[in-house]
This record gives sequence, C-alpha cells and structure tokens, in this order.
Amino acid sequence: MKQDKTRKIMRYEKGSFTEKEDRVVVEQPSTIKINGKEFITIVCSPAHMEEMAIGFLVSERIIPNYQAIQDIRVDEKTGTVNITAEKVYPFFEQLQNKRFISSCCGMSRQGFVFAHDAMIAKKMTEVRVTLTPENCFQLMTDMGDTAEMFKQTGGVHNAALCDANGIIVSRMDIGRHNALDKIYGYCLMNHIDVRDKVIVFSGRISSEILLKVAKIGCEIVLSKSAPTELALTLADDLGITAVGFIRGSSFNLYTHPERIVSDKATAIPVKKWGDK
Amino acid sequence: MKQDKTRKIMRYEKGSFTEKEDRVVVEQPSTIKINGKEFITIVCSPAHMEEMAIGFLVSERIIPNYQAIQDIRVDEKTGTVNITAEKVYPFFEQLQNKRFISSCCGMSRQGFVFAHDAMIAKKMTEVRVTLTPENCFQLMTDMGDTAEMFKQTGGVHNAALCDANGIIVSRMDIGRHNALDKIYGYCLMNHIDVRDKVIVFSGRISSEILLKVAKIGCEIVLSKSAPTELALTLADDLGITAVGFIRGSSFNLYTHPERIVSDKATAIPVKKWGDK
Repeated sequence: MKQDKTRKIMRYEKGSFTEKEDRVVVEQPSTIKINGKEFITIVCSPAHMEEMAIGFLVSERIIPNYQAIQDIRVDEKTGTVNITAEKVYPFFEQLQNKRFISSCCGMSRQGFVFAHDAMIAKKMTEVRVTLTPENCFQLMTDMGDTAEMFKQTGGVHNAALCDANGIIVSRMDIGRHNALDKIYGYCLMNHIDVRDKVIVFSGRISSEILLKVAKIGCEIVLSKSAPTELALTLADDLGITAVGFIRGSSFNLYTHPERIVSDKATAIPVKKWGDK
Repeated sequence: MKQDKTRKIMRYEKGSFTEKEDRVVVEQPSTIKINGKEFITIVCSPAHMEEMAIGFLVSERIIPNYQAIQDIRVDEKTGTVNITAEKVYPFFEQLQNKRFISSCCGMSRQGFVFAHDAMIAKKMTEVRVTLTPENCFQLMTDMGDTAEMFKQTGGVHNAALCDANGIIVSRMDIGRHNALDKIYGYCLMNHIDVRDKVIVFSGRISSEILLKVAKIGCEIVLSKSAPTELALTLADDLGITAVGFIRGSSFNLYTHPERIVSDKATAIPVKKWGDK
C-alpha cells in the first residue's frame, strides 16, 4: 500500500495561485478482528499493519503474549487484520476508558487515569541501559535521517527503537501510538529483546506515549518535543527516564537521571541529583 | 486550575548539566457523567471543562442540543463534569468505534471510517463565509499571538473560531479535538452562530479534526500544518474548504476553493479551478 498520494492543489505564493501536484500522507482504517469478531478499528498509516496489530494486542495485554497468536491474516483490500488467538483477556473490554480510582485495585499508583493502564503498565526497577548526552543527540539525528515521509508530507510521527549504537528499527505513522505499536510488533515477530533498548520519538511525550513505552517495557524515552506533567508523574512512578527538547546541543532531563551517564569530557553529578 | 506546573529539571547545555526550574503543561482527566452514570473520560488541559463537556456531547450528538442539558456541575477536585440531560441518544454508545460499511446506512459517504461519524457529520452545501489570502495569513498570525502557553511549555494545540475580522474565541488543549470541543461549547453557551465562522488550528488536519469541524458546522478550516489524504477526501465530500501549511506568505488550498476569494491585488481564477 502506498503511504502517500499525489493530489492537485492550489499553491498560493508571492501573491498568486498556481496549480501544482502535492504529496499528501495517507490515513487508513485498520480493523482488528479477533477470532472472527470486530475488536477495534485504528486509523493509521497503511504499512506494517500486521506489526501494529500484534504490538497493540500484546502491549495492551488483550492477548497475553505473542505465542498466543495462532494465525494472523491481513486483508489489505478491506483494511482488516484477522487474528486467531487461543486466549483473549477480558480486562481490556471491561476496563477500557474506565476511570482509575486509586483504591479500587489495591494499588496507589500515581498519575493513572484509566483502570486498564494502572493494571498493566510495568514498573522499571533496574538500570539495564544507559546513554551519554552524545548518544541522545546522535540517536535523535539518526531518527531524523530516517524520516523521509515526514520531510515530504509533513504529516507523520516517527519513532525508533535504539541502543547506544544506533537505530534497530524505526516506524512512522499518522497516529501517535501506532508507530510504537508497530515497533513492538516488529520486535515480537523478530525475537528482539526490548528491555535494554531506548525509544526515540518525534512528538510530545504525553501520558499516552509514556504509558505505551512502559507497556512495551523500555526504560528510556527520548523526544524532540515537550512532555506533559502527567507523563512525568507516570515516568517518576514507573521508573522511566524521560528526556525532552533534544535540539541542537541541548536537552532537558526530567526523570530518573541515573540512566544518562557522564561522557568522558564532563563529570555529571547525576547520581547525587537523583538521590532525593 | 493551573494549566502548567513548575518542575525541577536537569538542563544539558554546552556540555554540562545545570539544575533549573521549568514549566510543564498539565494533562488531567475529565470524567463526564450523564445522569449519574460514568460516560467517558477525556484527558485534557484543566480549563474550560464545562465548555469541553458541552461541546463534546452536542458535536458528537450524544445529546441532541444545548437546550437538552438541564444542569451541569463541575467538580474540579475529582475532575468530574456531572451532566443532567433530559434526552440522551443511544447511537454513540452503540456505534462508537464501529467500522462504517458504506452500504449499511443507505449512504455512499466517502472516506468515513466510523459508523457514528457517517451518521452525524453535516454536509456544507452553501458558501456563507469567504476569506481572502490576506485574511488567512492574518488569522494564523492572530492565533499565534494568543498562544502564550505553547510558547512557554511547547505542549499544546491551539484552535480559534474566527470570521474575516479576527478571532472570536481561542482555546488551547493538550488533546487535539478538545480545543475544538471547548470552542463549540463556548459558542453554545454564548449563543454564537458558528455556521458563518472559520476554524483556525495549529496542528495537522487529520480525519478526526476535519470531522470535528464538520460536526460543529464550520465551512473553512485553516492550518499551519499538513492535512491527511483521508481528511481531504472527507473535506471534498462534506463541502469543507481546507487550507494548510499557512506559513510566511504562502499556503496550500486543498479543497472547495470557492471560499477563498480574490483580494484586490490579484485576480484568482478559483471558480474556474473549482469547476471539475
């Protein structure tokens, strides 16, 4: 499927209109059916729909794990992903969009809005990956270099799974969390361990994105943009290192600084600052 | 409620970290209860929640009109908007997120993904408002001037309701469609006719945003960013003029050019181009 289409538009420039051809990014519905039943319809970029369905179903714990998926068939014509699964958890349908009340699950998780998220988001208690400031800049540059579609159409979010050596897989999508679901689906299908990897994201770190990072199980999220206060409360609570506004040679380190370590040139007292 | 919070962060600049205070945008749940029952939870910026609830419920035709709302009480402490309404349509709960199959409603609406949208989106058949290119630039500049929060935190979408003379109301929100729901709620509460007005939006024109503009009932949407192909298909079908990439002294006119009219300096053959 083509991810963009050419359209005739009127371009206004220097005081007058000219007709020209322009490339516009495609947005397309993908309906996930589980065992023959319509489960959810996600509007997305029409590529890697198999990855997106797998990443979405496993990260949201609708299906316990990748092994529980017995068969997957993509029908590109109707935009349907048909999943056969031996086990489907009932929690998502019961709890989706239901408000989380701190006491109801016997947990005191801060910052959670939805009951389903509070139930499934993983807490990172270890430091399995560290980055230097130079790694942060380099990974953001590397992700930008892969973002061909954005340059041409201006309409997509980019995400990448990385380690300190560079990008392992990058995906773009018009939907904010779809790019992350596609990355996770790719990792599941290719048996890539995500737990010592880093997510690099082009857009804002909203609570939804932070939670998706936690559900996937990554410890660090790097962004070119701003975080929200709720996302940072969740990052604090879930043990995730959030870095934002990575632009030029500067960035903001918001939470869990223990994973951003000194490079050779400078001695950074992150440990001290982290002790609070 | 404060829309941003001050946080201690580590700023990395010129090779070293310094601790500083930074302002981060607040994201907060707002649970709408209708007649005592939890209806939906929307994560939003914590301002104008009454407007958002009214705008959301009426634009999505969950409640037939503003007059059907008998009482509205905002509980800021719990983030709840309690609505008492004499009539609630059952369609939203039945059709929300259900895939639209062209034939099922006896309509051949192009580009619709969800059945509920296909049922309620209005088609604009008249030209009740026109703008000159200069109006487009001026309105985008005016909206930028109101966007104080964005400048300080980098984390929100801005939207404004305008006519050719300028901004009538502007709202910002961390959620894409919330800003538009707040604007519509404001108009309903203040008896402002939206049908001859224009929506100016800071973000991308996705299908969701285009549909929200159609549900509100505006004929023109102006954006600083890119549209998606699906949004333009819907704009074509619903009679909406979509203008994107309004930056500096240029923009792209994508659909229904009949509402962007010649200014005095240039003769623009829009009618001719529109005849296809």
